[in-house]
Amino acid sequence: MAEVLKVSSKSNPNAVAGALAGVVRNAGAVELQVVGAGALNQGIKAIAIARGYLEPSGVDLVCVPIFADIEIDGESRTAIRLVCEDRAHTTLDLVALEAAQPEHTLHG
Amino acid sequence: MAEVLKVSSKSNPNAVAGALAGVVRNAGAVELQVVGAGALNQGIKAIAIARGYLEPSGVDLVCVPIFADIEIDGESRTAIRLVCEDRAHTTLDLVALEAAQPEHTLHG
Repeated sequence: MAEVLKVSSKSNPNAVAGALAGVVRNAGAVELQVVGAGALNQGIKAIAIARGYLEPSGVDLVCVPIFADIEIDGESRTAIRLVCEDRAHTTLDLVALEAAQPEHTLHG
Repeated sequence: MAEVLKVSSKSNPNAVAGALAGVVRNAGAVELQVVGAGALNQGIKAIAIARGYLEPSGVDLVCVPIFADIEIDGESRTAIRLVCEDRAHTTLDLVALEAAQPEHTLHG
């Protein structure tokens, strides 16, 4: 499964872009997890910047937004996960596969 | 060039998703133009929803965020354009080509 970078409204888009590009170069894909409009804004800016970093390496970075229910301090929140990867490479089959496996098989 | 849908912070993500899916089905691609974090939030939600609308037709909707300088009421603003299209289909070469043509050739 792709590494997850959590992005907040205080994250620096340039710094996130650098981290994002590094993980994509090494692992082929990365997910940004954001909660709220301010965090999403920084995440999307980071992706737009990272496209420029990765283009000379022949990576055509695309993103796929997916809703995700997460828990923060015991409360249920809706996050958005931005799956970032080269256009020619999809991890989404893997994500779907993992989601399809009931969790209890992992814990007995 | 792909049709442009302008999305505001007051846009309904479900309505935008329906319009987005319709244009992608007919034309293969669409661009959402947003200014500000609230508008971006509605646009990204719309893309996440539209993925579900298009999946049964075999369309793997991806988005590519690009910064764009636009003018609103005579003031220069930075917008984000979200190019939405099937993963297997890219319009970006066309976009780059148009951007590379100096505008003054159009006006004499």
